[in-house]
Amino acid sequence: MPYELYYWDGIQGRGEFVRLALEEAGADYIDVCRGPASEGQGIYAMMAVMKSKSEAHIPLAPPFLKDDDLIISHVANILMYLGPKLDLTPEDQGARHVVHGLQLTITDLVAEVHDTHHPIATSKYYEEQKEEAKARAAEFIDNRMPKFLGYFERVLRQNPKGPAHIFGDRLTYVDLSLFQVFEGLRYAFPRATAHLPTQYPHLAALHDAVAKRPNIARYLQSERRIPFNEDGIFRHYPELDKNAA
Amino acid sequence: MPYELYYWDGIQGRGEFVRLALEEAGADYIDVCRGPASEGQGIYAMMAVMKSKSEAHIPLAPPFLKDDDLIISHVANILMYLGPKLDLTPEDQGARHVVHGLQLTITDLVAEVHDTHHPIATSKYYEEQKEEAKARAAEFIDNRMPKFLGYFERVLRQNPKGPAHIFGDRLTYVDLSLFQVFEGLRYAFPRATAHLPTQYPHLAALHDAVAKRPNIARYLQSERRIPFNEDGIFRHYPELDKNAA
Repeated sequence: MPYELYYWDGIQGRGEFVRLALEEAGADYIDVCRGPASEGQGIYAMMAVMKSKSEAHIPLAPPFLKDDDLIISHVANILMYLGPKLDLTPEDQGARHVVHGLQLTITDLVAEVHDTHHPIATSKYYEEQKEEAKARAAEFIDNRMPKFLGYFERVLRQNPKGPAHIFGDRLTYVDLSLFQVFEGLRYAFPRATAHLPTQYPHLAALHDAVAKRPNIARYLQSERRIPFNEDGIFRHYPELDKNAA
Repeated sequence: MPYELYYWDGIQGRGEFVRLALEEAGADYIDVCRGPASEGQGIYAMMAVMKSKSEAHIPLAPPFLKDDDLIISHVANILMYLGPKLDLTPEDQGARHVVHGLQLTITDLVAEVHDTHHPIATSKYYEEQKEEAKARAAEFIDNRMPKFLGYFERVLRQNPKGPAHIFGDRLTYVDLSLFQVFEGLRYAFPRATAHLPTQYPHLAALHDAVAKRPNIARYLQSERRIPFNEDGIFRHYPELDKNAA
């Protein structure tokens, strides 16, 4: 049975962190919303799960993963679940929680990136909260982004097994997610991130190493990789970008 | 060895979700920041861990839990780790991920509550972002709070084992966290939550049942339970409260 990934069509968004793990592992999966309605896929298949009046423990929001009868919600939770199956997490149970903690810090960062363009109301258009977005984006660029990236750079530097991976001496799903964060931030804020490679050399090296992994490189060239756009989490609005303080 | 919980002194904040689980289980734990410096506790003990230049995989922010040499960060991760040890999660591995997904939805809700009083910048005072806070709080009260609470009410209603618990027919740490969410929302927004018990009867019943559990009732009466205040996540600013739309 292939894994079924349920996420909005047309954006990388939060689903991309799961896609990268599945692609790296060469796992058999269906990106349900992007499939044909004639085969029971498409957006309505996702809505049917979310609106079910009988299913127990339906998720509040995508992405979620279906593995047989089990429905797992939230990116970090999906990755923790898939980690052992895709060989992208350590063997040790305690270490798995440490890795999961790193992923949850990425979750926080991603939520803050989202709020740079929607600081007041998810239910309203960006254009309706543009002034507040400018203030929040400036705060993000000057204070929050350095806090998060400085943290991950430090974790890489202090990794007893060396700075090539965020945990231990092997690839984990967190490495893949850090690649995506790096990509996304550079897309959204080209001015603010101009000096990222010199400021965060270990993160930059990790990003480059992930991009070169054969399965990831193939995926990035494929049509399965949706380009960044202004409906996703990482959006490029030039008026929100600025040189870092 | 008692568990060591590291979290800011003086507030319930995010640490409270962990405290409730430890208290319900009658676990042996130390609330490190509230302990005496003469015994190696207090805020400096927490800072020493966070600022360590040698420790691997230090957390970005509290709360975190120390269990012997293992350091676990993020509330939901700590609860997932403690769940089996405190008998507050199901036996089945898949079910544990479902329970964790529910907890991560609470994490999202809590982050949105925080942003009602800090919509622009965590680094600035509430008073400096009061106007934006009013707009964000109104959005929270009218759209987000009903979305989250309606979701949890529905999960309770659709629980095949009945609405007394959020998962299965036994108490999990998510039930305890839902109690705290209910308490916190009523403290922060008394007007907006005036009709919560009639709108969300299963959630209200769950809240009342948790409050009556002997260990929880004792804890709530003790000095260990810090009162809500305007330094925590749930803050009562009358100007942010309003009748629900």
